[in-house]
Amino acid sequence: MDIMRAWAYLNRVIEGTHPEIVEIIRQFGPEDVAERIKARRALPERLLASTESRAYVDNSAEDLDHAARLGYRLVYPGSSEWPEDKFDCFAALDVADRSDAPPLALWVRGQGLRQATAESVALVGTRATTKYGIDVAKQLSEKLSGAAARRVSIVSGGALGIDAAAHQAALDSGGVTVMVAACGPGVAYPSSHRQLFDEISRSGCLVSEYPPGVRPARHRFLTRNRLVAALSDAVVVVEAGWRSGARNTANWATRMNRPLGAVPGPVTSPATSGCHDLIRSGQAILVTNAENVLSLYREVGSVDEDCQLELDWAKSPVQQLSRSELSVYDALNQKGSVSVDVVSSRAGVSIGLATHLLLELQKRGFVQRMKDGWARIVES
Amino acid sequence: MDIMRAWAYLNRVIEGTHPEIVEIIRQFGPEDVAERIKARRALPERLLASTESRAYVDNSAEDLDHAARLGYRLVYPGSSEWPEDKFDCFAALDVADRSDAPPLALWVRGQGLRQATAESVALVGTRATTKYGIDVAKQLSEKLSGAAARRVSIVSGGALGIDAAAHQAALDSGGVTVMVAACGPGVAYPSSHRQLFDEISRSGCLVSEYPPGVRPARHRFLTRNRLVAALSDAVVVVEAGWRSGARNTANWATRMNRPLGAVPGPVTSPATSGCHDLIRSGQAILVTNAENVLSLYREVGSVDEDCQLELDWAKSPVQQLSRSELSVYDALNQKGSVSVDVVSSRAGVSIGLATHLLLELQKRGFVQRMKDGWARIVES
Repeated sequence: MDIMRAWAYLNRVIEGTHPEIVEIIRQFGPEDVAERIKARRALPERLLASTESRAYVDNSAEDLDHAARLGYRLVYPGSSEWPEDKFDCFAALDVADRSDAPPLALWVRGQGLRQATAESVALVGTRATTKYGIDVAKQLSEKLSGAAARRVSIVSGGALGIDAAAHQAALDSGGVTVMVAACGPGVAYPSSHRQLFDEISRSGCLVSEYPPGVRPARHRFLTRNRLVAALSDAVVVVEAGWRSGARNTANWATRMNRPLGAVPGPVTSPATSGCHDLIRSGQAILVTNAENVLSLYREVGSVDEDCQLELDWAKSPVQQLSRSELSVYDALNQKGSVSVDVVSSRAGVSIGLATHLLLELQKRGFVQRMKDGWARIVES
Repeated sequence: MDIMRAWAYLNRVIEGTHPEIVEIIRQFGPEDVAERIKARRALPERLLASTESRAYVDNSAEDLDHAARLGYRLVYPGSSEWPEDKFDCFAALDVADRSDAPPLALWVRGQGLRQATAESVALVGTRATTKYGIDVAKQLSEKLSGAAARRVSIVSGGALGIDAAAHQAALDSGGVTVMVAACGPGVAYPSSHRQLFDEISRSGCLVSEYPPGVRPARHRFLTRNRLVAALSDAVVVVEAGWRSGARNTANWATRMNRPLGAVPGPVTSPATSGCHDLIRSGQAILVTNAENVLSLYREVGSVDEDCQLELDWAKSPVQQLSRSELSVYDALNQKGSVSVDVVSSRAGVSIGLATHLLLELQKRGFVQRMKDGWARIVES
């Protein structure tokens, strides 16, 4: 049995990875472990039990063949496109749960997975979107991934709503996007996104840890979400209600020490209440634009200069005056001039100090001396 | 010179309090300090210099008379309605700035100030509001202050926009509201709010630390903001752009250790960007409703039960299943029944475990055994 066949077999008979299983395969090699599963021997009870119902059928040749016809290849630890660095995040997890492990292998269609996720941000959210959520998802996706922008890949789950808006905006702006499915190759879920998925596979890639034909199920959405978080440098929840699946992805990000952002929205919109809760509880950082998203994981100072434009809210000169300067400046009229003793009285400072401050302000171009007193130059 | 006249005199000749001035008056009494200022003797240079231009005119009788005709009385340290406890917050401040001190005295019109601010929340925000901001300000104000609600006073600055909406909603719902002015009695700023201020004085009160006729000025807005923060148990910024004056109030709250909340909004709205920045930087807690506001300063657990309704987002029973229970539950069809071996295969668990989990789920009312297999009872 060659290594590709062994991985395909393991990928079919083991659903739900576990650190222990990953370690056994690493230690003995996929071929040996596949043989042991078939022979029902020399493996921990956990692995024998969980493969009991599937072990006797070796579907690996058919799976590889079927996947290939669908444009998928099998990627596994040691493959050049296996995203080794990204999967370091699993080391941060405890080992209590069988989903707390990297996938055994991945079916990939489209561009190389490692390259496609070299710098990547997950944009996830509710299916029950509002126009606001869709607009924000599109804008973030475009600003992050677009040709004129930062060239960050957009990772998402291909679902209706926010996921689809994020994928589509990346495609539309010439960016790269990665869709992680909760079902196997050959199953399009939702089926209305079949064409979107085809488009994604041309410039980005489709990823699944399930063998061909496996249908989506609730537990697969949950384990899929861990891959969305794992394949991204940061996770951003764009719009999510209290019980959105996006909160599950957010929880994975937190457990994996992936930076987590959430986009606020109107407090009157239930579609945003999950984001607000993530921010309020301190689990997520509030993000409002692409610049904020990049600063979730990029080193401070490395952010592109063009992003800084969004932060251009410098104070007006008048706002930079000290409080006593301001009290003198404010004591002048909007128009016309005012005598020093009136300034002194209005500002509540001595005539000496008023004169001193007025001369200081004159030097700096805020006020000017007139025949009959003092007048403003700069209007705030 | 009686004590009332002394305070009125000091209030007129000293603008901009300072911890040192407060301490001198506390030590020698207002009458003695007033005499010293008039006599230009035995006082620190700071106090002599800052009173130089006004010291020689004693306007106290006219001010008290003028204020009385306008419905105002003078409240000062030792008065029964002086909000002593609230002004403890000034102890948290450093003494570098002359505004870092409690007011010397306050002109008050309407209800007793101490009672009116016994439990109070400041709702502040931009003048350049959106409909969203106005709606949220109204709703928070009503929920906090309304007769059917928590009876929290609403403190604000009487400005156009958020301030006015907060005051008005408190009035409309039968609550108490307190307006802190940046000008003296007899000056309505903005003048279009004259009627609103009259209404406020009937059920709540108007407060100013400036003597009658003093016009508003920029430095007075800034020192007024410190009083808004000081008179409140918590400060909430409802809507604020990057450079809104509400951020100044927020900064006072932070320096005074007053809990600070901010309401998020659409990231597409510049009117909310200041709130988002306060939350993002960690200066403010994100608040979305009255319950959140109360929890800024009330002890955990003391929040009224009716507020809890807003937090009613309990998980559905199916969402509370463990991951292995869920994988078995999901392996059943939406309709009709499925045999144990199919469940075992779909869920990737042994037939023994599948049977065990199905029996467990049956006990808890999620599934039922049929003639030809297992079927769901509860739909998620």
